[in-house]
Amino acid sequence: MTKEEITTWFKILQKDIYTQLENADGKQKFTIEEWQHTQGGGGITTIIENGNVIEKGGVNFSAVSGDVPSFLITETEHSITTSTKPKTFFATGVSIVIHPQSPMVPIIHMNIRYFEMDNGVWWFGGGIDLTPHYVVDDDATFFHTQLKNVCGVSDINYYTKFKAWADDYFYIKHRKETRGIGGIFFDRLTSNENKSKENLWEFVKNVGLCFAPTYISLINKNRNLPFNDTQKQWQLLRRGRYVEFNLVYDKGTQFGLQTDGRIESILMSLPQFASWQYNHKTLAGSAEEYTLNKLVKGVEWVKK
Amino acid sequence: MTKEEITTWFKILQKDIYTQLENADGKQKFTIEEWQHTQGGGGITTIIENGNVIEKGGVNFSAVSGDVPSFLITETEHSITTSTKPKTFFATGVSIVIHPQSPMVPIIHMNIRYFEMDNGVWWFGGGIDLTPHYVVDDDATFFHTQLKNVCGVSDINYYTKFKAWADDYFYIKHRKETRGIGGIFFDRLTSNENKSKENLWEFVKNVGLCFAPTYISLINKNRNLPFNDTQKQWQLLRRGRYVEFNLVYDKGTQFGLQTDGRIESILMSLPQFASWQYNHKTLAGSAEEYTLNKLVKGVEWVKK
Repeated sequence: MTKEEITTWFKILQKDIYTQLENADGKQKFTIEEWQHTQGGGGITTIIENGNVIEKGGVNFSAVSGDVPSFLITETEHSITTSTKPKTFFATGVSIVIHPQSPMVPIIHMNIRYFEMDNGVWWFGGGIDLTPHYVVDDDATFFHTQLKNVCGVSDINYYTKFKAWADDYFYIKHRKETRGIGGIFFDRLTSNENKSKENLWEFVKNVGLCFAPTYISLINKNRNLPFNDTQKQWQLLRRGRYVEFNLVYDKGTQFGLQTDGRIESILMSLPQFASWQYNHKTLAGSAEEYTLNKLVKGVEWVKK
Repeated sequence: MTKEEITTWFKILQKDIYTQLENADGKQKFTIEEWQHTQGGGGITTIIENGNVIEKGGVNFSAVSGDVPSFLITETEHSITTSTKPKTFFATGVSIVIHPQSPMVPIIHMNIRYFEMDNGVWWFGGGIDLTPHYVVDDDATFFHTQLKNVCGVSDINYYTKFKAWADDYFYIKHRKETRGIGGIFFDRLTSNENKSKENLWEFVKNVGLCFAPTYISLINKNRNLPFNDTQKQWQLLRRGRYVEFNLVYDKGTQFGLQTDGRIESILMSLPQFASWQYNHKTLAGSAEEYTLNKLVKGVEWVKK
C-alpha cells in the first residue's frame, strides 16, 4: 500500500476513535484544529477538556514531511542498505493520550505510525500502554489479554516480544519505576522473509482498531466508582511521574521538539493538573503501595 | 582555598539562607535530611512545604565525589591542559528553588557550585534567575540592579556577560520563551591572567550572600497583594513551563539524573501543583499578555 492509503486510513481512524470517546464521555466534544508543518504537510489535533470522564485528552493525526534530521540519519545508518543517503522523510501517525477525571480510571496512550525516507527505507512503529493510578489486577489482565489477542492474529511471538519492549520503553529510569502496567511497543518494523508490508500494515491497523473498545470498556467499568481526596492527590502525583516520563524519555516528544513540531500538539500529552511532593512515601499495606509494587518490569499479566 | 574550605562555607550559607527564609515565611520550618551519594560524599536537603509564603521550596547543599562520567570527559576535553586524563571528580554547591503560594510573588532559583577533577582542572559555576508569574517592571529592575551591583564588585564586565548568558541558558526553546526575566548565569570560571582562584571565590560568595536579602525584599513587597482564581490558574500554567524547562533543558537536572544523584533532592525544583492547558491564549491587553511579551532575550532591566 502507498503512503497515501496509510495516511487516509489513519485519518479515518482518528475520527472513529474521537467519536467513540465523545460518546463514552457524554458531555464534551472534541475541538478540531488543523495545522500546517513548517516544512511540509500538517495534522489535525483534536482535544477534549473538562468532560464527564475525560479531564484532558487528545487524539492527534499528522502527516508531515521534511529534511531528514541529522540525529535520525545517525540512528538509522545501520539499517540503510541502499546506496542512497536519505534526504527527506515522510511520517504519518495517530497519537492518543487520555487523562481521566477520576483516579479510578486509568490514563491511556496509543501511537501508531508509518515512516519512510526517499531512499526507500520505511518502517511501522507504535504501541499502547496503560497507566492506572491504582493497579487493579483484573483490569490489567483484561488489557493485556486484548493486546495479546491482537498480536496473536499476526504473529504468535509478537505479544511476548512487544510486551517486553514496552516494559523497557515505558520506564522512568531515575525513579526505577515503569510508567504504568505497560502494554506493547514496537518500532522499525519492516518487511523480511516472514512478513510483507501488507502483513505489517494489517497488524498496525488491528492495534489501532482495538484501542477504543478496550479503553471504553475500562472507562465504563470504573467511571462510577467513588473516590476521596487522598486518592485524587495520589492521581496528581502519578500524573507528575507521567510528565517526567514524557519530558525526559519519550522519543516521540523528543522527535517533535527536535524537528520543530507543533508544540501544542506534542505536549497535549501533559495533564491538566499534576503535583510533586518531596519524598512522598506510601503507607504500608495501602492501595498506593500495592500499585507501586506492580510498577516493575516483567509482570506476567496474562496466564500462559 | 581548598575544597574543604569551599564546602564548609557552602554549608554555612545553606543554613543562613534557610533560616532567613523560615523567618520570612513565619509559619513552616525547613525539614532537614542528610543523605549519602552512591559513590562518595552526600548532602543536606532542606525542604519547606505549605508555608505562609512558600508553597514548596528547597535549599540544598551537596558535596559529592565519584568517577568522572564519560559525557563530562567529552564535554571538557577542550579545557584539559594537563597530561593526565581525569578519573574522579568532586563537586559541591548550594541549590535553591522557591515556589511561593501567591502568584504575585515570583519563583526564584539560585545555584552556586565548585567542581574539580583529579587532574587539577577546576571551575566555579552558578546563577540566579527570577521567574515572576506576573512581570512587574520595578521588581525586575530592582532584581537586576542587585545582581549588577554584586557583579560590579568583581568585574565591570561580569553583569553584561552573565546577564546575556542567563538569557541564553534559561530559555525554553520549544516555547520560544525565556523561563522568566533571567538574571545571571556563569560556568567554568577558572583562573586566568586577570583573576585568581581567590578573586573568583569572592565573586561566588557574593552571589550567594545577595540571594536572601534580594528575594526576601521581593517577598515582603508582594506577599500581601490580593489575587483571584484567574491569577492562580495562570500561576499553575507558568509553573508548567518551569517544569518543562527543568526536565527538558536544565543541565543540573540532567547531570543529576545521569550521575545517579539523589532524585528527591534533584526534583525538589518541581512545584507542588502545575497545570497544562491546550493552546492557552492570553487576552489582548491583559497582565498575562504583558508578562509573555517580557519573556524574551535581551530586555535591558537596568538603565545604563
